Amino acid sequence: MTYCCAIRLDAGLVLASDSRTSAGVDDISIYSKMHRFDTTPDRLVVLLSAGNLATTQTVIRQVERDVGNPEAEHALNRTEHLDEIARYIGGISAEAQTSYGSSAEQSSPVMEASFILAGQIGNQPHEAFLIYPLGNYIAASPTKPFLQIGETKYGKPILDRMIDPTVSLERAARCALISMDAAMRSNLSVGPPIELLISPADRHEDARRLRYDEGEPYLTKLREAWADGLNELFVKLPRFDWEA
Amino acid sequence: MTYCCAIRLDAGLVLASDSRTSAGVDDISIYSKMHRFDTTPDRLVVLLSAGNLATTQTVIRQVERDVGNPEAEHALNRTEHLDEIARYIGGISAEAQTSYGSSAEQSSPVMEASFILAGQIGNQPHEAFLIYPLGNYIAASPTKPFLQIGETKYGKPILDRMIDPTVSLERAARCALISMDAAMRSNLSVGPPIELLISPADRHEDARRLRYDEGEPYLTKLREAWADGLNELFVKLPRFDWEA
Repeated sequence: MTYCCAIRLDAGLVLASDSRTSAGVDDISIYSKMHRFDTTPDRLVVLLSAGNLATTQTVIRQVERDVGNPEAEHALNRTEHLDEIARYIGGISAEAQTSYGSSAEQSSPVMEASFILAGQIGNQPHEAFLIYPLGNYIAASPTKPFLQIGETKYGKPILDRMIDPTVSLERAARCALISMDAAMRSNLSVGPPIELLISPADRHEDARRLRYDEGEPYLTKLREAWADGLNELFVKLPRFDWEA
Repeated sequence: MTYCCAIRLDAGLVLASDSRTSAGVDDISIYSKMHRFDTTPDRLVVLLSAGNLATTQTVIRQVERDVGNPEAEHALNRTEHLDEIARYIGGISAEAQTSYGSSAEQSSPVMEASFILAGQIGNQPHEAFLIYPLGNYIAASPTKPFLQIGETKYGKPILDRMIDPTVSLERAARCALISMDAAMRSNLSVGPPIELLISPADRHEDARRLRYDEGEPYLTKLREAWADGLNELFVKLPRFDWEA
């Protein structure tokens, strides 16, 4: 499994992903699931991936190849709108999944992949899209400012509570790390390193990309502060009426 | 859906359940999923239920009928060990599910039900069992002190963090309410009233059963304190190194 989330704020974008892949408990590997594409300076295009690793690698390689191919019908460096890129990537993904369908009809759900596409092109608004295995997609919105793929449920309550479009990039980034930590603690198939990308609106050239291995000092400090704070908070919660 | 959890502590048992059933978004009802059986004074037997409502009602009625039937092979008031009761209930449940199998083979997963059985008999240890749809079951243990059924993932991180067998009944009960609140916030199919049962070890005659409707003062106070506390905690979390 995998856990990735994208938060679309007024102030910009926050993306987080884990790096564990598992094709069984005896086949665990580390792969980055955050792909920032090298394209024209007017745009930021980042893809988070979950699902079948062969499918997600096929998609990413095809996307990279198309950038360097002036004859390709679509390419990240030429497409004018982010939602067109979502459609283009969804199409490659759906095709990659079905191309193995005839030889492995039984296992086709196993081929599935989901993506989150996030970024900004020129003066257009920054956006984030969740691309489903069938290739269709939805956008984040002010009333639904975060998107998740993979093992999404454990990390959802803290995002539900803390995220609205007005929060700061840094606060949302801390929330994403805590959401990731919840998924990692509750599900062994989600694991470090955690990658984080923080991109201010209209200034994606200032985007920060961070990578937190297990034991990285900031992540450790954040986790400890969170755990200690929760313990203190628990002690202060209102007592039942029969308690002293 | 449904969410129920049981926590087995050194100090006793804490059980919590929601009360929403849904057979579709236009068919939402309120049913208690916490069943405390009226049996002999030497024992406490409580069943939490999730899954198909027809199946869970069939099981509970059969169990109640068997208590009043001296010819029944098993009955809650005569069975000597709690794990035997788990096997007995698992058997009724599995049979109730398959009895509709021939006429509705396609929909048999829809018939599934899971249960948590918790209680204490005489001087035996207090225990909790998760009964799977097939009728097999596992016990809570010191290393796995809580069990969950239904929509379990949203409420798991807080239990993972806060529960070990040494915590007090009241602290565990607050944790169960917060776990329930997380499930209710993140999933519309989990809803009030919340029921809570707190039973001290070896004194189950002192068990407390509480019911929290939406807007109940203690629940409201607890939620507000939790939300305010999380907000305060978030403000105090360690800053990234580039922040002022």
